[in-house]
Amino acid sequence: MNKYKADVIVTLKKGVRDPQGTAVDTVLRRTGLEEDSSVKVGKYFTLSVSGENEAEAKEKLNKICEDVLSNPILESYAIERLKEV
Amino acid sequence: MNKYKADVIVTLKKGVRDPQGTAVDTVLRRTGLEEDSSVKVGKYFTLSVSGENEAEAKEKLNKICEDVLSNPILESYAIERLKEV
Repeated sequence: MNKYKADVIVTLKKGVRDPQGTAVDTVLRRTGLEEDSSVKVGKYFTLSVSGENEAEAKEKLNKICEDVLSNPILESYAIERLKEV
Repeated sequence: MNKYKADVIVTLKKGVRDPQGTAVDTVLRRTGLEEDSSVKVGKYFTLSVSGENEAEAKEKLNKICEDVLSNPILESYAIERLKEV
């Protein structure tokens, strides 16, 4: 059984309101840091999973993302930097 | 004035407790999805800034990260995929 590490990024789907992002936009405008920054806020996870091979680890990660890390109705996820450790 | 887009990842510094990550660990163990996942939770932002050139955009992004997007005492940040749009 090998151990694989990956990063997961969870972002709101297109068209879903992003009040956190809007709040950051407002702060950046009011402080004069940036006029139009179109901030979008998401979540970032690093985690490791065990698996016989990379395909099995990927499958497990997909299940974890769908069941635990994201809300598939509102959010989409991307698995990045999957590698054996 | 050009417009640059970038991703920012904010993570807890080493040694800072990560209760959200621990909570996800517990869920993954209880549901039988993964025994030892060592989940770390961070924040993910995409935003755009204006600047004369990439160096100026980078400098502005650093200031935004330090002043608004992260708490430099507890968190570190990484600017990724900076590119002109």
